Formats: sequence, C-alpha cells, structure tokens
Amino acid sequence: FCTRQAQNVVHFLVEDWFLSALLGIITAVLSVGMDVAIEVLQHAHVTFYDKMLAISSYLAFSQWVAHIVILTMFAAIFCQIVSKQAVGSGIPEVKVIMHGFKMENYLTTRTLVAKMVGLTLAMGGGLPIGKEGPFVHMGAIVATLLSKITSACQYSAFFSNEGREMEMLSSGCAVGIACTFSAPIGAVLYAIESTSKYFAVKNYWRGFLAATCSAIVFRCANFFVTAEQSGTITAFYQTRFPTDCFLVEELPIFLLLGFISGLMGSFFIFIHRQISIFRSKNRVYKLIFRNNFLAFTVFMAFVVGVLTFPNGLGRYFAGRLTFRETMADFFNNCTWVSNDSRRCPDTILTHWTGGSEGDVSIFTSLVLYYILYFVLVAICISINVPAGVFVPSFIIGAAGGRLMGETMVVLFPEGMRGPGGPPIHPGLYAVVGAAAYTGAVTHTLSVSVIICELTGQLSPILPVLIAMLMGNAVCKFLQPSIYESIIRVKKYPYLPDLPPSRVSVHTVKVEQLMVTDVIYITKDMTYREMKEILQLAPHLRSFPIVTDHENKILLGSVAKRYLTMLLRRHVLVNQQDSRNIGRM
Amino acid sequence: FCTRQAQNVVHFLVEDWFLSALLGIITAVLSVGMDVAIEVLQHAHVTFYDKMLAISSYLAFSQWVAHIVILTMFAAIFCQIVSKQAVGSGIPEVKVIMHGFKMENYLTTRTLVAKMVGLTLAMGGGLPIGKEGPFVHMGAIVATLLSKITSACQYSAFFSNEGREMEMLSSGCAVGIACTFSAPIGAVLYAIESTSKYFAVKNYWRGFLAATCSAIVFRCANFFVTAEQSGTITAFYQTRFPTDCFLVEELPIFLLLGFISGLMGSFFIFIHRQISIFRSKNRVYKLIFRNNFLAFTVFMAFVVGVLTFPNGLGRYFAGRLTFRETMADFFNNCTWVSNDSRRCPDTILTHWTGGSEGDVSIFTSLVLYYILYFVLVAICISINVPAGVFVPSFIIGAAGGRLMGETMVVLFPEGMRGPGGPPIHPGLYAVVGAAAYTGAVTHTLSVSVIICELTGQLSPILPVLIAMLMGNAVCKFLQPSIYESIIRVKKYPYLPDLPPSRVSVHTVKVEQLMVTDVIYITKDMTYREMKEILQLAPHLRSFPIVTDHENKILLGSVAKRYLTMLLRRHVLVNQQDSRNIGRM
Repeated sequence: FCTRQAQNVVHFLVEDWFLSALLGIITAVLSVGMDVAIEVLQHAHVTFYDKMLAISSYLAFSQWVAHIVILTMFAAIFCQIVSKQAVGSGIPEVKVIMHGFKMENYLTTRTLVAKMVGLTLAMGGGLPIGKEGPFVHMGAIVATLLSKITSACQYSAFFSNEGREMEMLSSGCAVGIACTFSAPIGAVLYAIESTSKYFAVKNYWRGFLAATCSAIVFRCANFFVTAEQSGTITAFYQTRFPTDCFLVEELPIFLLLGFISGLMGSFFIFIHRQISIFRSKNRVYKLIFRNNFLAFTVFMAFVVGVLTFPNGLGRYFAGRLTFRETMADFFNNCTWVSNDSRRCPDTILTHWTGGSEGDVSIFTSLVLYYILYFVLVAICISINVPAGVFVPSFIIGAAGGRLMGETMVVLFPEGMRGPGGPPIHPGLYAVVGAAAYTGAVTHTLSVSVIICELTGQLSPILPVLIAMLMGNAVCKFLQPSIYESIIRVKKYPYLPDLPPSRVSVHTVKVEQLMVTDVIYITKDMTYREMKEILQLAPHLRSFPIVTDHENKILLGSVAKRYLTMLLRRHVLVNQQDSRNIGRM
Repeated sequence: FCTRQAQNVVHFLVEDWFLSALLGIITAVLSVGMDVAIEVLQHAHVTFYDKMLAISSYLAFSQWVAHIVILTMFAAIFCQIVSKQAVGSGIPEVKVIMHGFKMENYLTTRTLVAKMVGLTLAMGGGLPIGKEGPFVHMGAIVATLLSKITSACQYSAFFSNEGREMEMLSSGCAVGIACTFSAPIGAVLYAIESTSKYFAVKNYWRGFLAATCSAIVFRCANFFVTAEQSGTITAFYQTRFPTDCFLVEELPIFLLLGFISGLMGSFFIFIHRQISIFRSKNRVYKLIFRNNFLAFTVFMAFVVGVLTFPNGLGRYFAGRLTFRETMADFFNNCTWVSNDSRRCPDTILTHWTGGSEGDVSIFTSLVLYYILYFVLVAICISINVPAGVFVPSFIIGAAGGRLMGETMVVLFPEGMRGPGGPPIHPGLYAVVGAAAYTGAVTHTLSVSVIICELTGQLSPILPVLIAMLMGNAVCKFLQPSIYESIIRVKKYPYLPDLPPSRVSVHTVKVEQLMVTDVIYITKDMTYREMKEILQLAPHLRSFPIVTDHENKILLGSVAKRYLTMLLRRHVLVNQQDSRNIGRM
C-alpha cells in the first residue's frame, strides 16, 4: 500500500505539478526575451528617426518607412523558409486542433522558432498587430513539446489519452495569454473561452498553476531588466480612477457604448472577411500582387510606414507612439478637452493635437485614429507574418471609448449631476470601450477580467460588464467571432456552434446534410473485406463497428492505427505459425 | 423567413435575456432586503447592550446572551415548521441536484421563505455563520421558480431539456454568490467550480448577465439605504495597498502561508466531520440533547453568547465586532505591532488589546480568536439554522494571515531589505491567508477572483494565487471539500470525483462494485413482461433497452414517464378500436 501511495505522490507531483509549472516558466522566459527584443527594436525605430530628423526630413522619412518595410520583409521571409504555419494569429488553428482535428506541422519546434522570430521582427518593425495570438500558439507548442519529451518518463503511457493532451494544450494557451498581459486569471478564462466548448472543471487548476508560474517569472524578470525596457514586460497600465468612478445615471450611456462597440466589432469582422475574399477573388489584385507571399506584405508595410510617418499624416493621430504608449494616453485619468485642473498635461495632449504646432482638434485626431487603424488592422492581421488581433482591437475599442468619453465631457462639463457633483472620467470610457469592442470581436466575456488585471483596478467592473454583455450580444447576433471567421475563410475543418435553442436544431437530420455513405466495419467481416475498406478510406482515423449490414447497431469504434496493428500482428503470427509448421 | 427570424429574436430576447436578467434582479432585491434586516438586528444587539451596560453589567450580559439565544431559537423553530430543508448551507444540496439526483422539497417557495427568515434571524442574532451558502440556495430556488412560471410561455416546451434547467440553476448559484460579495465575476466562476463538473462554455454568459443585473441592483440600492446600513450591502472592504505591495523575497513566505492554510483547512474539514459523527453516535451526547432539533441549537447559541460577551472573554478577541468589522480590521493597511507612522489608529487597536484597559498582547488576541472561531464555526455551521461556511472561513483565514503578517513585522521591523526598503504589509498577509484558507476548505480557485473583487485591488493577485494553489493542493490531497464532506455525512446520493489519473481508475470494473443485476427492457418484450418490470422497479426513472436477453447490446434508454404514456395510449387506442368494432 505504502509504495502505491508513494508512487501516486510522485506521479502526482511530476506529471501534474512539475509539467504545468515548467510550461509556465519556459513560455514566460521565451516571452520575456521576445518582449525585450521587440522593445529594443521599437526604441531603435524612434531613436534613429529622431537622429535622422536632425539631419533631413527626407532622410527621416525613408528611415521610418525602411525600418518597417525591411523588418516586415525579414519576418515574412523567415516564416516562409522555416515554417509557413507560423503565419497569422494561431488561435484559429489551436481552436481547430482542440476540437479534435489534426493540423500538420502546427505544433512543431520549427513553427515555434518561426513564430518567435517572425513576431519579434514584425512587431519590432512597427506593424499594428498584437502578440497574444502568436503567444497562445507558442504556449500550445511548448505544451505539446513538453508532453512529447516527458511521454517516455510518464508513469503509465497506456492510460494517457487525448483528453490529457487537450488539457496541456489548454494550459499552454492560458500561459500564452498570461504572458501577453501579465493577467493570470483572465488568461485562464480567456483560453477556456476561446478554445474549448466543454470544460472539465476539475482540471482547470493546471492552467492556473502554469499561469501563476509565468507571472512569477515576469515578476522576477523586472529585477534584471531596466525600467525603460520593462514596459512591454509588465504590459500593465495602472489606472487611477476613484472607487466611485461612475454614477448610476451613466450606466445607460455605457450600455449605448457597448451597443456601438458591438456593431463596430461585427463590422470589423465583416470587413476583415471581405478583404480576405477580395484578395483571393479579385483579378486586378491578383494581377498586381500575383500569388507571391512577399509582395502584398511588403506593400502593406510600406503603406503603414507612410501613414504613420510622425511628421506627415502620422502627426494627426500619434503615429509615433507604440500601442502601449497610446493605451497609456487613452486610459489616463484626466480629460483632453476641459480647461480646469483635470486637464491632461501637455506632454500627452501634444500627441493628439498635431504635435508641437497644436492646430488639430483632438476629436479629429481620435476619429482619424479610429478609422485608419480600423482598416489597417483588418488588413495587417491577414498578411504573411505572425499577427494577433486582440491588442489592436483593444486599442481601437479604447479610441472609440475615449471619443465617447470626451464627447460626454463636452456635453456635461461639470459632470452629470451639475456643478459640485462627481466629474466624468473619459479614461473610464476608454477602458469600457476597449473591453466591449474586444469582447465583441472575439466573442469572449473574460476580457472583463483581463482588463481589470491590466488596469489593476476593479472599480470599473460594472460598466465594463454591462457594455461587454451588450457588445457580445450584438456581435454574436450579427457575425461569428473573428477566429471562426478566419477558420471559415481558411476553410479549416470545424464544427460551428449550434444556434441557441431554435427548432431547426432539433428538426434538421444528419441525413439531410451528408453526401456520402458512412463507412463501417461489421462484426462478421472477413479480413479481405476489411482490407478493402482500409484502402477505400485512407484518410479516416477511426471506423465505426456495427453488428451486421442489416441492423447496423453501433457497437463501438476502432482507431485505424490500432486496427492495422492488430491486423499486422495477427497476420504475422499466422505466418510464423505456418512457418513453424513448415519447419516441423 | 421573416416571421421565423422575428420569432427567433423574440424567443432569444425573452427566454435567454429576460429570464436571466429577472433572476439577477429578483435575487438581488431579496438579498438587499435581508442585508438591511440583518444589519438592523446586529446594530440593535450592540446598541441595547451598551444601554444595559450603563445600568448594570449583569443586565448587559443577560441581554447579550438572550439576543443570540432567542433569535437563534426563533430561526430554528421557523425552519422546523415551514421547511426543514432550509437548514444548513444549501450548497451541498444544490451540488447533488446539479449532478442529476432529485431532492424533494429543496427548491420550493416554502424553503425559500424559511431560508430567508431563518438566515436573517440567525445572522442578526450574532451566530458566527456565513450567508453565501443560503444565498446560493435562494438563487437556485428563484431560478427554479422562474423556470416553472415561464414554462407555459416558453416557445416550444417540447425541445426544452434538463440541461436547460441546470443552466438556470447554475445562473441562480452565481447570482447568490454575486449578492453575497458584490463580486459578479468571481461569483460566476465560484458557482461553476462548486457545483459543476463539466461546463458548456457557450452558456456561461447567462450567469454573467444575471450576476451583472444583481450588481446593478446593489449599486442602485445604495441610493435608498443610509450609509450606516449599507455596510453589508456593499460587503466591500476596499484595501489601500500600494501597487508593489510585496517583494519577490516574500513569495516563499506566502507559499508557506498557503501550506499552513491548506493544513488547517483540511483539519477544519476533519474536525467538522468528527463533530457530526460524534453528534450522531455518542451516547452521552444523545442522552443530554436527545434527538430534539432545538436543544443543541439553543445550547450552542448560549455558548456563543457567553464566549463573545464583550466584557467577559469577548474582551480578548473583539467579541463585540461583527464579521464585517473584524474583516475591516484584518485587511487594514497598517501594522498592529510597530510604533512608527505605520501603526494602526487606537480605535482599531483597542479591539485587539483587551478593550480600553489595553493589557493583552495582540498575538494572544489573534491566537485566541483563531482557535475559538475555528471550533465555534465548525460546530455552528451544522446546527439547525441556515448557515454558510464561506464567510467564516474567510475570517479564520484572515486571522491566520494577520498573525503571520504581524509576526513578520516583528521579525523584520524595517522590511525584508532593511532600512529604507519597502515595509511589510500585514494586511496583505491577511488577504492572502483568507484566500488560501477559504480556497482550501471549499476546494475552489475562484476565491482568488472573489477576494480581488472584494478588496477592489488586483495588486495582491500573485501572492494570493501562489498561496491558494498551495493550500488547495495540500487540502485536496488530505480531505474532500467541506461540501463533499457534508454530502458524505448526510449520505446524499453523489458520485465522488475520480482520483486524478491513477491506474486503479482504469482497472476497477463496474461489476466489482454492483450488487444487483441491471434491469433492462429487450426489443422483443411483451406487454406483460414490461408491466412486470415496471412493477419490479417503481423507483427507477428510466430503463435501458437492449436487443435481446443473450447479446444485450444497448440500443438506448427510455424514460419511465414516456414509457407509461406510450403504453397507456396504446392500450387506450386498442380498447377504443375494439369498442368501435363492437358498435359496428
């Protein structure tokens, strides 16, 4: 009994704890390294630009654009050579894999390397893309590799099953998100929401453990990295709203914000899909860019470079800033339009009033920012580099929220209860807008937890929840989530969700949808028939077994691998037997 | 097409949205009312005590004890008369129901009324019990009643299924927790963790919606209730830790705190079970208290009254304070032992240094508090009144954490990095201890979210997660959760969790456990045989159908209700046919 108990403990510690912890630590270390590299590249972009600007404006322009174009080009080429599977977000692919379909080469070391290098270059270049999708993909790869490495040491491999792998994958996704936002709890929930349909509650502590370990690594990393570089590492935008940062009267406005965010979110998904369809169908487009993987990618990098050039059009919408810096501006607890003590410091305002000249209205800037990035992001997340959609959505939503918040300040300069009452916090609207829009685009509710962890405050939780539920409802009614949309565009195998409790769900029968007959094995089938069936369907991974051709009562299913193994062994034994008989 | 679409929209709005929202609102209104009543009763307890004390110490004593005893007695009698099912936490019962077993009278209006009145009286009296278990039960009842009321209006009742009811129940639980802590997100997660095993991700927005609606009601309620009474309504202990409230060096200490909390949590569960067994087995106990529902309950109320009497033993461990006030003391961001600027104000310290005389060490007070409530709570949650275990666990854990925190301040008066470095925050240790201990006792991780929502701060999230994972692991290894322990003690039908991936799970077969043969229906059974089977097993709710007696290949199952309906219809039609033939 004692040895069995001891074995259990060791098994428990090694397989359950050690693996999850290791997953968290490895992914966190990888992502800290990437964060630092991205930060250095982005910093170099601005620093060199400033140096060039001191010499000549043209030189500065070419430097600014060249940085984006060259790094993006390298990213695309690297991914093309090392692993084409590294392109894109990664969440749709992980979703497909977690729903039981096999995707070749998506969870290999090559893809991991390609994803890491590609993302670092593309983000360091300055493309308006996010890192959470690639990080989820990376987490999933690390989880798979860890499972493979330890499968030899595992206690009793016979009892391991697919569910086990799925759990590890799910933990991997959670860790990926946790690394992006330093938000362990929200990460676990987001990973569940965006990849699973049903979830075994008793296993989700593994995700928590892994996410906590990665959070510890991040915390420790702050020791070794200078404060300047640690920006992306913490990815933490501490807000400073008071505890009662909103009034009950404002709740309908947050509901409206949620509604608009939901509409815009579904519009974004629609636009993104139309662009993808346009790129695959339109003849003029095909004539210009051919099917070359590089041409359009470099072209878009060039467009982004030209648009964001800080002394050109970029002057009007803070083109110089990275997403992180923009986010800090949006979430800041001061107002851009008022003139009293609550006015933001000029260092922030110059970003949004056309630079040092200050001749642009902040509303023009915000609207411009919103529209431009709305379109740019929709295109850039589908070019040939690793690119996530979460962080850009966050920024777009925050811009929309800030726009609404500043409008509210113009309408109610003294707050909604008149002079002396609590003022309106436009930063809060930005937070709410970001959550509602991102929640709508990704069809997830855990964004509310992530945004609270990101801002370090829980006082905005009620407006966030209200707006997010509204945005989610609107967007779910109009469009699939961005990930499902990508899955459809890329034609991955995937079972869509059932529409909620409608009659059609219960009256449409499978036979109305199926186009070929089901291939099955009967109980009394001969070896010859079985061989024919195996040759008939080389792509099937398992076969149903029925009683006989007439009744077709299902008895179970058998995996192809297992079936061939049994067949081979049986035939081999028979052959040996006959040989032995021959020898005798 | 248009009408179908419109029908879908209406259906979607009414059934999905309206019901969930209504559930949230109704439960919140009920709980606000109860909160106010409890607060009034608790306030009266202290006010009258003070008045009596001005006259005579003996009068004060008898008033203090009588208040507890009489209200507890009324609570017990009310529950006994109206609905015995209202006694206890309610979470174990809801858990059993959600796992598919039927419990009579647990989800009726009578039980709702008994639970509300009983809990209000028992908590208003001053017993050391919590309200979250009863609130969960209440939420579940409201959900069930709402389902029943609207079942007539529902679009197409034929397609409604058990899963649907379970979803409503789950939302109800979430709302109950949300009402206890004003923590909508943590509530949804806690409800999932404590009641479900597998969870359909696409449905959990319903819980969110309901919890958000109840949070809105709570927010609005703050308008109408005076600040003095609003204490329990918000149940919000805003902490004021700085953003970097802990050092990396402190993490191992939090791990240790988690370990100790886990040990104490499992010890608590053990003690609680032993007391229950003692009460049902011990002869002396039975001789004294008989099987009377009232005797032991009143006795315990008397004991609590005597122990907490503020001028007696209660002087040494803040017996005068309610749980909410104690919690505010524990979480306060100042130290009890240091003498510099970080020392707590005297109004707080007098609670823990033996009142105005100030002759007791705070360590004595804390240890006494910890031990006394550890035992008292273990007994009081199983007497014959509605009583939850979550909030008392919270307090006990916080006391343990505070003890450790204050010890740390004594060991490192200048903080762990010496003079000039960041100081130690004992309040943080209290928060961590509360989370770890409660998480251990209930085997849930979402306590981490609840405690963040409760304190309104996210900076302690990393220590909380570390300690909680540790505490959970230790307690899961040693004991079942308190709810499962209660389920076992009360001998409810319940399938325990499988031990995680051990060989025995895969090698023990059902036939080794089963004691009677399976009753089944064959395809070619006669009406007579079927009737016999129906009479043979009147308690079964559905029967398996197999091909024949030899092969016993499972074809499916049929519900008894459906079977009898079919039989009746068939027999009736046959009779009518023969009558018709007779008439012709």
